[in-house]
Amino acid sequence: MAVITLTTDFGTGGWFAAAMKGVIAGIAPEARVVDVTHEIAGQDILAGAFVLAQCYRNFPRDTVHVAVVDPGVGSPRRAIAVKSQDYFFLAPDNGVLTLALATVDDRAPLQIRSIENERLFNRPVSRTFHGRDIFAPVAAHLATGVAFQEVGPVIEEIVRLETAEPKVTKKGIEGRVMFVDRFGNLITNIAARHLEQLAGEPKSFRIGSTWNGTIRKFGRFYGEVPRGKPIAVIGSSNHVELCVNQGSAAKTFRAKVGDSVRVA
Amino acid sequence: MAVITLTTDFGTGGWFAAAMKGVIAGIAPEARVVDVTHEIAGQDILAGAFVLAQCYRNFPRDTVHVAVVDPGVGSPRRAIAVKSQDYFFLAPDNGVLTLALATVDDRAPLQIRSIENERLFNRPVSRTFHGRDIFAPVAAHLATGVAFQEVGPVIEEIVRLETAEPKVTKKGIEGRVMFVDRFGNLITNIAARHLEQLAGEPKSFRIGSTWNGTIRKFGRFYGEVPRGKPIAVIGSSNHVELCVNQGSAAKTFRAKVGDSVRVA
Amino acid sequence: MAVITLTTDFGTGGWFAAAMKGVIAGIAPEARVVDVTHEIAGQDILAGAFVLAQCYRNFPRDTVHVAVVDPGVGSPRRAIAVKSQDYFFLAPDNGVLTLALATVDDRAPLQIRSIENERLFNRPVSRTFHGRDIFAPVAAHLATGVAFQEVGPVIEEIVRLETAEPKVTKKGIEGRVMFVDRFGNLITNIAARHLEQLAGEPKSFRIGSTWNGTIRKFGRFYGEVPRGKPIAVIGSSNHVELCVNQGSAAKTFRAKVGDSVRVA
Repeated sequence: MAVITLTTDFGTGGWFAAAMKGVIAGIAPEARVVDVTHEIAGQDILAGAFVLAQCYRNFPRDTVHVAVVDPGVGSPRRAIAVKSQDYFFLAPDNGVLTLALATVDDRAPLQIRSIENERLFNRPVSRTFHGRDIFAPVAAHLATGVAFQEVGPVIEEIVRLETAEPKVTKKGIEGRVMFVDRFGNLITNIAARHLEQLAGEPKSFRIGSTWNGTIRKFGRFYGEVPRGKPIAVIGSSNHVELCVNQGSAAKTFRAKVGDSVRVA
Repeated sequence: MAVITLTTDFGTGGWFAAAMKGVIAGIAPEARVVDVTHEIAGQDILAGAFVLAQCYRNFPRDTVHVAVVDPGVGSPRRAIAVKSQDYFFLAPDNGVLTLALATVDDRAPLQIRSIENERLFNRPVSRTFHGRDIFAPVAAHLATGVAFQEVGPVIEEIVRLETAEPKVTKKGIEGRVMFVDRFGNLITNIAARHLEQLAGEPKSFRIGSTWNGTIRKFGRFYGEVPRGKPIAVIGSSNHVELCVNQGSAAKTFRAKVGDSVRVA
Repeated sequence: MAVITLTTDFGTGGWFAAAMKGVIAGIAPEARVVDVTHEIAGQDILAGAFVLAQCYRNFPRDTVHVAVVDPGVGSPRRAIAVKSQDYFFLAPDNGVLTLALATVDDRAPLQIRSIENERLFNRPVSRTFHGRDIFAPVAAHLATGVAFQEVGPVIEEIVRLETAEPKVTKKGIEGRVMFVDRFGNLITNIAARHLEQLAGEPKSFRIGSTWNGTIRKFGRFYGEVPRGKPIAVIGSSNHVELCVNQGSAAKTFRAKVGDSVRVA
C-alpha cells in the first residue's frame, strides 16, 4: 500500500489539505496519506525544504512526497516530479526539494520530469490551487503504479536554493537556524557531515550577532551540562542543535529562524 | 473503501476528534477518516457551513461528511442525515449544511431523515458529546453499508441559514467575508454564479465600511496587478476572493470574517 | 486491522509526528494511525496522562496507545509497555500512563514490561527522539502481531503520578482543573466515581483561590441555568466539568489548568 506525504503552508484551519486528500481518495483509495505539516510559514520555501528533508527517509520505499509551498502558483513556474533510488518527490520548481535531494541515496541518478500530462490532473485546473488540481492527483496516480515517465518530459535543470546549505571555509562553518522546536531548541542546517570538514572538534557556536551569545560546549546529550546551561549537540535528524538543558535556547539567546550560526 | 470527513469546532488540543475516530474504527475498521478541520471558531455555524461547502465535492462518491458545530448539543435540536445524489451528510439541525446542500448535484432529490435509531449509537449517549456518541457511529454504520433509511424517519423541513447566501439586487450583490486564508486573502460567499446575475462585469468591490476600502480591479490572477496592489479574482473554490498581490488583503483593508462585501 | 494512537507534546509544526508515522508505515503498512493530540504542553506529563485517559477506551480492542511526553529522554529512565485486558500502552516510565491504567478493565491483571529488545527498534537509536526510534517501531510490531513478551523483561514497579488523582476526605474532594476546552469549560480530575464517596449530593465547587469563585449549582446539562450562569455537570468523559451556559467558565472564573477545585 503506497504512502503519500504532504508538506504545505496551507494551515489547518481551512479546507485546503482536505481537498487534496479528497482528490487522492478518489484516485488511489488504498493509498495512505500522512501529513508532515501544513504549518510551514506562508511561502517560506526554505522552511518547507528543511522540514521535508528531516523526515522523508523515515518512510518506506516508493513513498510519494508532495511539498506545496508555492508563492509562484499561477505564474509560469514549472511543476516537477523527481524519482530517486527510493522515493518520488512532487513540488513546484522553486527549490523546496533542494535539501531532500541533496541527501537522497545516490546509487541511482535522479530522474527529473516536468509535470505536464493533463490527463493526470483534476480538471478544470484552477489558477491558484495546484495542490488540489495537479500535485494531489499526480501523486495519487503514481501511488497506484502509473509509470513515472507518464507525468511529463525529462528536464535537466531545476531550481536549487543556494542559501539552504551552510558555507564551509577554513575559518569554520557559517549556517543558520532552520527550525525552533516546541522546547526552544535551535535546529540548524549544519549537519554532522559538515562538522567533519573542520580541522578538529568544534569549539564554539556563535548565534546571530554578538549580543545573542556563543555556546562553547559541544556534547552528546543535554544532561552533560547543569540545568539552565547551554550545549550544542547532534540532534535526532543528524544536525547541530543548540540547546539549554531543561530550558529554551530560543529564549536564552533571543534567537529565531534565519539567525546565523557560526561554528569555529 | 468508504471515506468519512470530519468538520468540527473541537480544536486539536484535546481528545475530542480522537474519540470520534476511535468509535469509527470499532465499527468501520476499513473506513478512511479525513479531517477537514477541527478549528472552526467555537460554535460558528456559518464558518463550518462555508468550509464544508468548499471541499465536499472533491471527495469520491458515497463519502460521509460529518459536520459537528453544535452550540445546541443537549437541547432538543434534532440530529439530521441527508443523502444527495453523491454524498451523505450528518450534522445537528442548525443550518451547518446549508451551503453544501445549496450546491449539491440536484439530479436526485435530497433525502432527509432525523437520526433517531439508537441501535446505531455509542451508548450510553452523553448529553454533551454527540460527535462521539451519535454522529461518529452513525457515519461509520453508513460507511459499512447500513441502509440510509435505518437512521430514522423522513423529515421535510430542516434549518437553513438565511445569512449564508449573498443578497443579489439590481444595485449589486451584498455578501460577506467568510474566510481569511493564511496569506490574508479574503474569501467571500459570493460565487461565480452570483456574478452572472449582474448586468455586466463587476466594477467595484467595497469591503466593510468606507474606511476599509474598495477594490476596482477584477481579474483572473494576482499577477495582473503590481506587487502590493489589490485585485478581486474568482478563487479555486469558485468564489470571489479579495487579494493583494504578494501581500495581505486582510491587513491592507483591516478586514475580518463577517465584514460585508458589496459588488457593483 | 490494528489501530495505533499517538499522544505527544511534539506540536504539529515540525516533522516529529510524521517521522513516527513513516517508521510505522514501513513496519505495519496496514495499521491505522490516529493522532490523539500532539499539543500537550511541553513536557506536561500530567496533561498527557489526562488526555489519553479520556479517550483510550473509545478505541477497539487491541489498539496500541503510544504516549510520548518525555522530559527525561536520553536519561536512564525506562521505556515501558503495558498490556491490559483490552489494550497495549507504550510510554516512557514517568507516570504518563497513570490515569489510563487507573481506569482500565481490571478483569485481567496488568502485564508490565521494560522495552529493551533492540531488534524491534529503528536503528541507530537517537538520544533525543525515542518516539521515532523506540516507541513507533515497537507499537508497529505489536500491531502486526508480535508477541507482547518480545518487547522485554517483566517489571513490577512503574512510576505513578500522585498528583493525578484527587484527594477524597470527609470534608470533601480536592482536585484540580486538568483541561480547558475550546469553549472555556473547566474539566477536572474529579470523576463521577469520586463524587459517590461524598455523604450526599455535592453542594459547592470552589475554584482556585477565594477570588476566583464558587459554583453552587450541580446539574445534568448547561441549559438548566440561564445564559451566563455557572453550573457544574458530569461531562462526556465522566468527570466534573465547571461551565457557564453559553459562556466561558475559564474567563468568568479567571481559571486555568492546575487550579485547585474543592467539592463539598
